[in-house]
Amino acid sequence: MTPPHGVAAPLHGVDPAWLPDGALRGVGARRVLVRGEGVLVDTARTEVTHACAKFGGKMVGEGEAYELLLRVTGGGDQEAEGFLLERGDGRTTVTAATPAGLLHGYFHVVRLGGATFVDAPPETHRPALDLRMLDHWDNVDVHPVMGQVERGYAGGSLFWRDGKARAEPERVRAYARLLAASGVNALGVNNVNVHATEARLLTDRIGEVAAIAAELRHYGIRTHLSVSFAAPLLLGGLDTADPLDEGVRAWWRAAVDRVYDVIPDFGGFIVKADSEGQPGPFAYGRSHADGANLLADALAPHGGTVHWRAFVYDHRQDWRDRSTDRARAAYDHFAPLDGQFRDNAVLQVKHGPMDFQVREPVSPVIGALPATRVAVELQVTQEYTGQQRHVCALAPMWSEVLRFRPRGGDGPTVGQLAAGGGLVAVSSAGYDPFWTGHPLAQFNLYAFGRLAWNPDAEPGQLLDEWIELTFTPESTGDPALLRSGLRAVLAGSWATYEKYTAPLGVGFMVQPGHHYGPSVDGYEYSPWGTYHFADRDGVGVDRSRATGTGYTGQYAPPWSDTYETPDTCPDELLLFFHHVPYGHVLHSGRTVIQHIYDAHFEGVEEVVAAQEVWASLAGLMTPARHARVSELYEEQLRCAREWRDQVNSYFLRKSGVPDGAGRLIH
Amino acid sequence: MTPPHGVAAPLHGVDPAWLPDGALRGVGARRVLVRGEGVLVDTARTEVTHACAKFGGKMVGEGEAYELLLRVTGGGDQEAEGFLLERGDGRTTVTAATPAGLLHGYFHVVRLGGATFVDAPPETHRPALDLRMLDHWDNVDVHPVMGQVERGYAGGSLFWRDGKARAEPERVRAYARLLAASGVNALGVNNVNVHATEARLLTDRIGEVAAIAAELRHYGIRTHLSVSFAAPLLLGGLDTADPLDEGVRAWWRAAVDRVYDVIPDFGGFIVKADSEGQPGPFAYGRSHADGANLLADALAPHGGTVHWRAFVYDHRQDWRDRSTDRARAAYDHFAPLDGQFRDNAVLQVKHGPMDFQVREPVSPVIGALPATRVAVELQVTQEYTGQQRHVCALAPMWSEVLRFRPRGGDGPTVGQLAAGGGLVAVSSAGYDPFWTGHPLAQFNLYAFGRLAWNPDAEPGQLLDEWIELTFTPESTGDPALLRSGLRAVLAGSWATYEKYTAPLGVGFMVQPGHHYGPSVDGYEYSPWGTYHFADRDGVGVDRSRATGTGYTGQYAPPWSDTYETPDTCPDELLLFFHHVPYGHVLHSGRTVIQHIYDAHFEGVEEVVAAQEVWASLAGLMTPARHARVSELYEEQLRCAREWRDQVNSYFLRKSGVPDGAGRLIH
Repeated sequence: MTPPHGVAAPLHGVDPAWLPDGALRGVGARRVLVRGEGVLVDTARTEVTHACAKFGGKMVGEGEAYELLLRVTGGGDQEAEGFLLERGDGRTTVTAATPAGLLHGYFHVVRLGGATFVDAPPETHRPALDLRMLDHWDNVDVHPVMGQVERGYAGGSLFWRDGKARAEPERVRAYARLLAASGVNALGVNNVNVHATEARLLTDRIGEVAAIAAELRHYGIRTHLSVSFAAPLLLGGLDTADPLDEGVRAWWRAAVDRVYDVIPDFGGFIVKADSEGQPGPFAYGRSHADGANLLADALAPHGGTVHWRAFVYDHRQDWRDRSTDRARAAYDHFAPLDGQFRDNAVLQVKHGPMDFQVREPVSPVIGALPATRVAVELQVTQEYTGQQRHVCALAPMWSEVLRFRPRGGDGPTVGQLAAGGGLVAVSSAGYDPFWTGHPLAQFNLYAFGRLAWNPDAEPGQLLDEWIELTFTPESTGDPALLRSGLRAVLAGSWATYEKYTAPLGVGFMVQPGHHYGPSVDGYEYSPWGTYHFADRDGVGVDRSRATGTGYTGQYAPPWSDTYETPDTCPDELLLFFHHVPYGHVLHSGRTVIQHIYDAHFEGVEEVVAAQEVWASLAGLMTPARHARVSELYEEQLRCAREWRDQVNSYFLRKSGVPDGAGRLIH
Repeated sequence: MTPPHGVAAPLHGVDPAWLPDGALRGVGARRVLVRGEGVLVDTARTEVTHACAKFGGKMVGEGEAYELLLRVTGGGDQEAEGFLLERGDGRTTVTAATPAGLLHGYFHVVRLGGATFVDAPPETHRPALDLRMLDHWDNVDVHPVMGQVERGYAGGSLFWRDGKARAEPERVRAYARLLAASGVNALGVNNVNVHATEARLLTDRIGEVAAIAAELRHYGIRTHLSVSFAAPLLLGGLDTADPLDEGVRAWWRAAVDRVYDVIPDFGGFIVKADSEGQPGPFAYGRSHADGANLLADALAPHGGTVHWRAFVYDHRQDWRDRSTDRARAAYDHFAPLDGQFRDNAVLQVKHGPMDFQVREPVSPVIGALPATRVAVELQVTQEYTGQQRHVCALAPMWSEVLRFRPRGGDGPTVGQLAAGGGLVAVSSAGYDPFWTGHPLAQFNLYAFGRLAWNPDAEPGQLLDEWIELTFTPESTGDPALLRSGLRAVLAGSWATYEKYTAPLGVGFMVQPGHHYGPSVDGYEYSPWGTYHFADRDGVGVDRSRATGTGYTGQYAPPWSDTYETPDTCPDELLLFFHHVPYGHVLHSGRTVIQHIYDAHFEGVEEVVAAQEVWASLAGLMTPARHARVSELYEEQLRCAREWRDQVNSYFLRKSGVPDGAGRLIH
């Protein structure tokens, strides 16, 4: 018996994001029958009740006339989250095999709005990926360097504050509601860098995780936990964390059993091991498969999964060592382990080989382990893409990644390859009233869930969908103008951001540590393996097999050949794969150096133009939302100019080549 | 009536530095008579008693035979700290007009050791500068970025810990003893960046300052306090801190009166105003003279002094603005105010125009205010000179500065010009058992005091003096070998450090924030005004009148002409004053680019050689001391190589000029 619950409406003082009451009009004005049992069916009833109270519809009982029927048929695949949508003869029916399917069907109907009740052929919807997870890099204690949320740009954590659980269940549930409406069904509640306090969430502080899980469960979201591989040492008092040690294995089994005692639908663990200082199996001469399988075995009896991150590289590299290539690291570590992982172990791979830069090739790891479940990790939090002070709608980038075919031709897409493990992203949400700091960054959070449900979705359609939901007609004086304005500032914003930051795929050039703003040489002589090798003659990293680090050889054909030479390498990735002279002519017809200048001037001009568009939208939304974005545009423009001027000055000073257009370079 | 006190010997577990018991043999083996009264005479008696207990001498009474007489004659200049030394006929007499003079005479005798008792003509000693002050940039609260001690590299603070007074009077007194033996007579107990907690030291927490003063007083050291110019707002509840407001003036008078109630010999205030975010008189449209005089007037009735720092510049400069020159700032701000400061207001000027780089010209401010009392500020804490992980004996640099004649010819030296205000330095001492972190960095602390007493002292003689005191013959198996080894590693260490860091006076090139280790472009595109303007053709800052910022015009002749052209500018300052092509030939006959390569290779080779010398000294001192320095040499060598390789790679990449000697540049 599930107690009734009441949070369907947005919380006072907190932005409703893509679920303002106005978005519920299509459902809320109808007679609705909900048939079925279970927590998520109750949630759907709460939602419908709320919507009908707002818009004059009615939740009807069995035997009464209805316009919308939401029903769970039972039977079939109880794990499935799909649903059948039938429209015609004045009645619309959503049929799901499971309560989760029913809830997803409900949110689908919300998205359709009035179109729900227009005759149409039956449609079957089901998620392309079973696991659609947001990972929160939230710390329980405020970390002295990284703060409450590592790489967080939206205030504090929704879950933790100053060492304690924040204990605001309504806020967590409101967040879960937004996520469920986007398609997300799993959530990691703490940072993959597990510090001392956070390690204890696994044991004596598991109750705090259970309290979060109790809220997420109402929206069909399973809770996952980042754990320390050294937990047996840190928490168990053992003298080893060796994955093959029977005492260690027993300790993990018992620990997992206790987790499931309080969180019966617990999703599993997320592990960052032997990476950037986190402990791992290497200390015991064991492989990552040994490490992952240790946890997988402990989770298996309960149906849990371990997500083992492939983000393993030498972060103490000597910049003088030109033979080591960080881009190679994940493949070199993990490709040989294919087939050695348990069925409930998932290798979680960042989408690119480096670290969430504005432009990277797709990681060769994704297509290289056919006998291993692979999850692909994206970064919704905008660490390297403007930190939620810049508008940078990432759906186009993610879409490119998800549609990429690592084996070329008719081979599977990244989206298809990720079906085995899921799509995962680092969340951008925090305690900020707009959830994501920048109000327009909500679109990234929304689009992630939608792409995880359907990796083939069109970014432009998702943008329209998000605009329709977020900016309901009743909230604005001129819906068409608002829509075109929002499209104008968002649709091309990733391309704009790329233009005014590091050029042609070379990446980084950010301020060390916090990663905001430019510093062309900021990581050039560092131990982090992120170099551009600019000198007076040219720039870029030679990763060819012929003369470079051999990284191109990690790709299957045709990409191994495409990327091998500047002739065939796409312009936007040229400096990722090749070191070329400033005078090298791109496929675009421009030289590299002129491209750098042009792109940086254009990028700033595009920000100026977007800012002007935004100004024209004043009055078409709440003043608070408009004002917040206007303020942030000031900072984006300042920062974009700083990028432009530092990058252009740097390359002018180095190359000595004047701008062909004679513009001012300092 | 002064209570007796006992701390003359070093504390257990704390290094005795330049006052090990062995250094007291010359005095301690004699019959000594001390004649006079007062706190400092009592201190001298305690010292003599301790020394005699160690070495078999005796403190004798009036009428008894003595070999050493220390006496205060009274009369004369009661402020004077000088003394007369007379040696002959088996008797040595130190005669001082004041107890302070007697104590300084005692430490002089300690330095002389056995030579005290060798016949010699009478000598009169007196300090060239009346104020010889160490400023501690110690915070009471641990600052989230700067820590307990800003720019501190020797553990915690001697005075404060985690928001409270450390309350270890014996440690403070032991420190005061070391300082007095070096010649220091004033100490600032808190950071010139005055944060909220530290501001309260002026008012409700003055008792904690008084407790420190009570210890320092036993060694003739007056206590000074850094205060916030905004204290009337922060602490007084006033709505202004306007220096011409009568309420503000009354508030400061009352605050100062309360300070003198509990610290009758309080020295005065140190103020950093309108600098790097600290509040100041500009907010009220008042001048720095108005600000300084406000505090001077409050202090005057009690004989106190305000030290007003001239470190005022725009720390939010736009790097694109080539017309602004931070080096000009102090002169531009303060030279027009000459003659406007009260008699008890001292303008405290950093020795160079920038910020304690390894090589800077002497600040033109020092010679530019003939009607103002000027103090010169040095930095003993090695912020930019290796942070007490590198051996860098600074006495040769300070000596060059102090002997410089800002008006050329027979004009006064910096040491003479500073006589009006004093010599001040940021302390390097902390809670570390070796006081200064690096055991060899003790020499810098010692040498500062000695140069403040006598700016004309020879650095080499001071080094020998420090070696003799610190490494007493009885503590080593081979005094001659040890002495030559210590000379070898210390005497040229500043020149070595200069070679492997930023070249030819251009400065900075350090990692932003903490300032340790190289980052050639670390401050190049920053708001801090510290640029080198390196491009593919050349490097350096044009500060000439003819074509640059005009900074050379702030110097009096002949320097205004000497620095104006590369032909006459000294090599070591060339890039501070001029932007030159890499092929520019130095007076040394080498090109700039070849000098950069050569100096960086040589610098590292010199560190290697020093490390080898140090290794050869094992067994000639306590193992703990030798081991600590050996460990630090590992780090110094690693860091020096990093400097060499980053700087050389940077300039090879930019200039394209290969090393003439064909050495490996990455």
